[in-house]
This record gives sequence, C-alpha cells and structure tokens, in this order.
Amino acid sequence: MSRLVMKFGGTSVADLERIRRVARIVAAEAARRPVAVVVSAMAGKTNELVAWTDGAGGAAAGLPMSDDEYDVVVASGEQVTAGLLAMVLRNMGVPARSWLGWQVPIYTDDAHGRARFDEIPPEKLVAAMDGGEVAVIAGFQGMTRDGRITTVGRGGSDTTAVAIAAAVGAGSCDIYTDVDGVYTTDPRIESKARRLARISYEEMLEMASLGAKVLSTRSVEMAMARNVPVRVLSSFAEPGESDGQGTIVCDEEEIVEKRIVSGVAFSRDEAKISLYGLPDHPGVSREIFGRLADANVNVDMIVQSHAHREGAANMEFTVGKRDAARAVEVVRAAKDIIGFDDVAVDEDVAKVSVIGVGMRSHAGVAKTMFGALADKGVNIQVISTSEIKISVLIDAAYTELAVRALHAAYGLDRL
Amino acid sequence: MSRLVMKFGGTSVADLERIRRVARIVAAEAARRPVAVVVSAMAGKTNELVAWTDGAGGAAAGLPMSDDEYDVVVASGEQVTAGLLAMVLRNMGVPARSWLGWQVPIYTDDAHGRARFDEIPPEKLVAAMDGGEVAVIAGFQGMTRDGRITTVGRGGSDTTAVAIAAAVGAGSCDIYTDVDGVYTTDPRIESKARRLARISYEEMLEMASLGAKVLSTRSVEMAMARNVPVRVLSSFAEPGESDGQGTIVCDEEEIVEKRIVSGVAFSRDEAKISLYGLPDHPGVSREIFGRLADANVNVDMIVQSHAHREGAANMEFTVGKRDAARAVEVVRAAKDIIGFDDVAVDEDVAKVSVIGVGMRSHAGVAKTMFGALADKGVNIQVISTSEIKISVLIDAAYTELAVRALHAAYGLDRL
Repeated sequence: MSRLVMKFGGTSVADLERIRRVARIVAAEAARRPVAVVVSAMAGKTNELVAWTDGAGGAAAGLPMSDDEYDVVVASGEQVTAGLLAMVLRNMGVPARSWLGWQVPIYTDDAHGRARFDEIPPEKLVAAMDGGEVAVIAGFQGMTRDGRITTVGRGGSDTTAVAIAAAVGAGSCDIYTDVDGVYTTDPRIESKARRLARISYEEMLEMASLGAKVLSTRSVEMAMARNVPVRVLSSFAEPGESDGQGTIVCDEEEIVEKRIVSGVAFSRDEAKISLYGLPDHPGVSREIFGRLADANVNVDMIVQSHAHREGAANMEFTVGKRDAARAVEVVRAAKDIIGFDDVAVDEDVAKVSVIGVGMRSHAGVAKTMFGALADKGVNIQVISTSEIKISVLIDAAYTELAVRALHAAYGLDRL
Repeated sequence: MSRLVMKFGGTSVADLERIRRVARIVAAEAARRPVAVVVSAMAGKTNELVAWTDGAGGAAAGLPMSDDEYDVVVASGEQVTAGLLAMVLRNMGVPARSWLGWQVPIYTDDAHGRARFDEIPPEKLVAAMDGGEVAVIAGFQGMTRDGRITTVGRGGSDTTAVAIAAAVGAGSCDIYTDVDGVYTTDPRIESKARRLARISYEEMLEMASLGAKVLSTRSVEMAMARNVPVRVLSSFAEPGESDGQGTIVCDEEEIVEKRIVSGVAFSRDEAKISLYGLPDHPGVSREIFGRLADANVNVDMIVQSHAHREGAANMEFTVGKRDAARAVEVVRAAKDIIGFDDVAVDEDVAKVSVIGVGMRSHAGVAKTMFGALADKGVNIQVISTSEIKISVLIDAAYTELAVRALHAAYGLDRL
C-alpha cells in the first residue's frame, strides 16, 4: 500500500495516556503500510516555553526578540513528544525512531519564528519508512542551510505533515484533531451540522481563513499546491462513535456529489473601523490602506459610502480584533494628511460566510443569503465576496441566529 | 587573554532570575576574553523529562529502555537553557548564540544515556569565541557519527565543560556551583572547614568518588588526562561574601603549600553485606565477586576474616545502597555453589575517608586516623586504602563525630 503520513496535534499528545492512544492508532496503520507520524508539543508546553522566551528578552519584555534563539527554545517541545511516542511504539513491538527537523533534514529559509519550507530530501525518511520503521517526526521545526534550528510559526505542525507527505509521495496525509472531520458549520452552534465526506482545497482554504480552526491556512495552501490528499480525522473518537472516515480534502474534480454551498463559517475575531467625513477624491484609499499595510495591519472587508455632508465620504473596514487599537492609532496619527472628521471602532461584530465552489456556476446564491438574513431581521453592515464565498459583517449578537438561518437556507442539514 | 570555559549547573539556572544573574557573571568575563559557557537544564526539568520517559517505556515501567529516544527527550532540557541564556546575554548587549551538541559538533560513542566523548572539532566554536561572540553550549549532550543525539549521563555537564575546555585550549574551566570552592570537609558538619586554594586532580578525584559532590568523577578524570586547569566557584555568592577565588584543581606540582592530608570525605550511601561460614578455600572470592560483576554491582570495600567454625571464613563487602537488594539476590541465588551459612545486610553504615597526596611520602597517617577514632570510641568495621587515601566503614550514627575528630587530628582547621 502507499505511504501514509499522520499528524497529531498538542491535545492529542497532551499526556502519556493520550500518547499511548495515539500509538495504538499509529500501530494499526503501520501494520499495513509505511508510516510517518508528525507530532506537536504536548498541549501547554509550547506556551510554557514561549513564556520563558518572553521573560528572557522576547516581545513581551519590550526587548528585541532573538528569533533564532526563540526557535532553539520552542522547538524542544516537539522533540520531547517525538522521543516519547517512538519509545511507546517500540514497547508495543512497532519499530520506530524519532526524527528532528535537522535530522531529516527539513530545510527552511532563515525567517526564524515563521520560516517557510525550502526542501526536504526524502531519501532517509523513505528508506526508514519502507524498511518498516515508523518515522516519528517533530513537527513545526526545520533547519537553515547553515545548521540553525527554525520554527514555521504556530499551527505549523499541520504544514510539516503536508510537506512531509509531498516529499515522500504519500497517498494520504491524515490530520488527527479533536473533531472527526470538516462540518457544514460548527456543530456546537447548529446541531444539524453534517460532516462532509469531501471538501475541495479551495473551499477548505476559505473555511480555514474564515474561522474554521480544523486546519491551518498554510497547510491547506501547501496541500493544494503540491496536490496532497488530506484527511481530517478524530484522535478522540471511541470505536463506534465515528465511522472513522473523516473528511477528505482534495481536488474539486474528485468530488462527485455537487453542492452549491458546502459550509457556513463565522468569526468573532473582527473589529469594524469607521472613518467619517473623508474627502471624496482619488488617493484617499491609498493614503489610508498604505499606512495600515506599512504598520502590518491586515485589512479584510472594505466598504465606502457617501456621507451626509456634500462632497464627503465614509469608509468602513474590518481588521482582526488584536490589530484594532493599532489601526486606529495609525489612522489618527495621519488625521491631517488623510483628512476626516471622526473615527469609531466597533468590536461587537461578527463575520458570517457561506462557501462553495458551486457558486462559480450558480446565480442566486447571494440572493438566498440576503433573503434568509432579512427574514430573521439580521442587518448586514458590510459585504465582501470572492469567486467561492460571500461574507457579511453583522452585529455579533446575531451570530448563531444567522449561522442557523443560512445553514437551513442552503439545505445543508439535508446533505 | 586566554580563552575561558564557564559551566553553570541546574540550580544556577533554575529560573529566569538566576539565568539573568548567570548572564551578568558571563558578561563580566566576556568583556575581557573569549568565552564559552556550558549550561545544564533548569533544576527539576531533567527529572520531569526522565519521569516521562519512564512512563513511556523506561526502566521504571519494567519495559525495555529505548536509550536513544531517552536521549532525544532528555537532551531537550539543556537546549532550552542554552537558548534562554543566549537571549538574555544579547539583551545585555553581549553577542551570543546557543550551540547544541550536534551543532558544535560534540561527537560521542553510541552508548546512549552514558556516552563518552569521542572528538570535538573546535574550529567553529573557536571562530565564534575569538570573534567576540559568547558560545552558549548545551551541556550533557553529544551526537553519534550517524547523527543521533546522545547524553553523557547525569552530572555530565561538568564533563562537557572540561571536554570543551580541552578542545578549545582554554586557560581555565570555571565550574560554577552552589558552593564557593572545595573544602577540607563539608562545612555543614564541621564549621571549621576551610576552603582549599588549590587541590590536586588526584585528591579531587578521590574526594568526588568518596562522596564530595562538588564535581563529577568523570569530569575530574578528564581534566587530569587532558591537563585542563579547573576552578570551582560559587554562582550564588554575593559580592563581598566570597573572595571570588574559589578552588583551583590542578597538577600536584603546581601546589606550593604541601599538606599531608587535604580533606575528610564521607558517604552514607553504603551498605555492608556479610557472608558467614564460607568454605575457606581459593576460588570462593572469584565465585562471589564474579557473579556480582556480571550483575553490574559495584563492590567497594572487601574484608575477609576467619569464622568461629573451624575451616570456615566470613566475608564482608560494601556496595551502593541502591545495589544492596540486587547483591543479596545474586549471592542467595548461588548459595549452593558458593556455599555459605548465612547472609546479612547492614545499611546503617558510613564510609569516612582522609585524602592527601602527602600520604605517599609520610608514614603515620593511618596511625593518626585510627587513634583519633579510638579516642572518640568509634569502632572501625572495614578498612580500605589507596596511595592517597584511607577509608573506614563505621556505624552511620558516628559519622559527624568521626569527621570532626579527623578534621581536627590532621590540623585541617588551621590551614
């Protein structure tokens, strides 16, 4: 059978009992085919390590960050898990050994703390895997060409798994998490949410960037670019509780059942910033958003409208909640240059989105959305769209109501 | 000035506050000469990591130990300290970077968990140090020739420091610990104990193996073999509390002030095993001690005496307390082959030793010892001697009394 890469996150390896459970899942697969396992640090460990680096001179201490040494400290967390899982596997009679980033080697660029994968020579891993030894790989870490440890940013173990899967030509990259797949929406909000058997890379990418926390955005991007079939599975499901199939993330062409909308995502991590009384002439937008970009503030939705005052405009845009204060600061500092009357921030907003590759070929998706929201009395503040999603910004108090209304309106409870 | 290697143990780097104190000590030296610093794991961290390996399939779980993976897990502790200290140094304006065992590289053999240093190519370290960058080296760890992580056993960071000092040709290897030097005996027992300005390698070796926990035995052996001048200093002494000179461990020839006895050491980690009614013929000793050696039990003192019964002998020997049960088991299992009447274990014993290179040329050292003990009514159970030490086994209750009596008898309080 084809090679398999499996990945287990921090909560799946939080203690020895859970590591033993992971080992049983790995052993079952390893009996049938060559396996590599990518592991995160035990839950809580990365935070402990990061706190130490803060105290030693990191960002929180207001001191210049030593990103290369940050990586040395933080990468130790995955090292521990990899060693422990290899030990447990061996004691179950499964040949195994740990591989650290520098041992594989997993080459990255030298952007410490947020490095990008460069090259992963697969020879040593493939030899071990095909020889029947489970390769237990420390996720989240790599090495520069001159031999320094790097990390690929938080949530990076997903990306490690996909990169390893691409490198060894794996038939599947199975990401084990605390849910048993990708749902039409968050089952904690809509009990009628259904697990999707398959979802396209592009839809998954939108889901991930719109707030569904199942996979990291970068891992999906990489899976799409390298055409790695990804499967989302639960490491917690008891036998019988789940069918064990999870959700397969793959090319659109491999999905037989066609849907117009695949899911409803939402995020409460938004803040809306409103600028009133802007001069209504070209160049104002560049003035505003150029300054925000320079300050590393990511702007998401933007809408411009006429103000009550003649020849003036209003501008509304959204940023992540943690960037809101900085965004206001940047705008205020340039008040005279930009020229506006007033600025306001509203953090009581939520972004609700419907996603589906079927939108490309189907009209009426937006109409259904706006109709369903209007029926429930939900006011839409800002709209943004892409080829395969429509997002609206609404009052946060209406989040659950809107999610359930849209879930029903597209018939997602009947999949 | 010549290169300097400094070493700080686990209690000296137990938290960020202490790491900052260490950084200040390092910074003062680095302003004057090229410096490498070897660090241990933060106090308690190694025990946490070892406990996890036990749970994952180590000795304590009664499972076969994966020594190579044990090393992967445990070596992460020193990695964290090295990264943190490098960060703190940089934030004090001192150029620094961390070096892990595999980065130096510190080659060892492949005896995982208790590896021995093989070769340390010094080029990269020397270039960094001489370029004004403090090399912060993770202690206790190395790498096999085929790229797997090794550890050199508990207390191994001292040995790493000495090995690095030898490799880079350091003028001194300063071992910072929780005491400010080597004393004539433990000051907690004899308040008149005096710090020695200098002590010879051979005396230090005896002190270390006889229970003085200042330096690990292997580090002293290596310092002697490679002729590395070692200095023992306190990382805790407040300015003014100590003269900051510590104790220099060096060649006998470099010690001007000649003493007959340099120190009194003691150990309560002994157990005495007595075999009664052995056949009094050649080959019995081989039968007993061959079996113990096969079972990896280290035997220290041995004394044989005639038994009351005609043609029979008694044998007494000492082993470490943690080996006592195993030793008895081994002996009992061969009772019929060895042929003895009875076996007894006494754990209420202590070994007290006087050490001094001056013994080589002075008679009467033993006489002074036995006289001083007899004066205090201390009964001697077993005696063993080497060229530069005399050890006696006594009832553990008399330990402090005996130490103080010997300290006075050799005039060590008047140094």
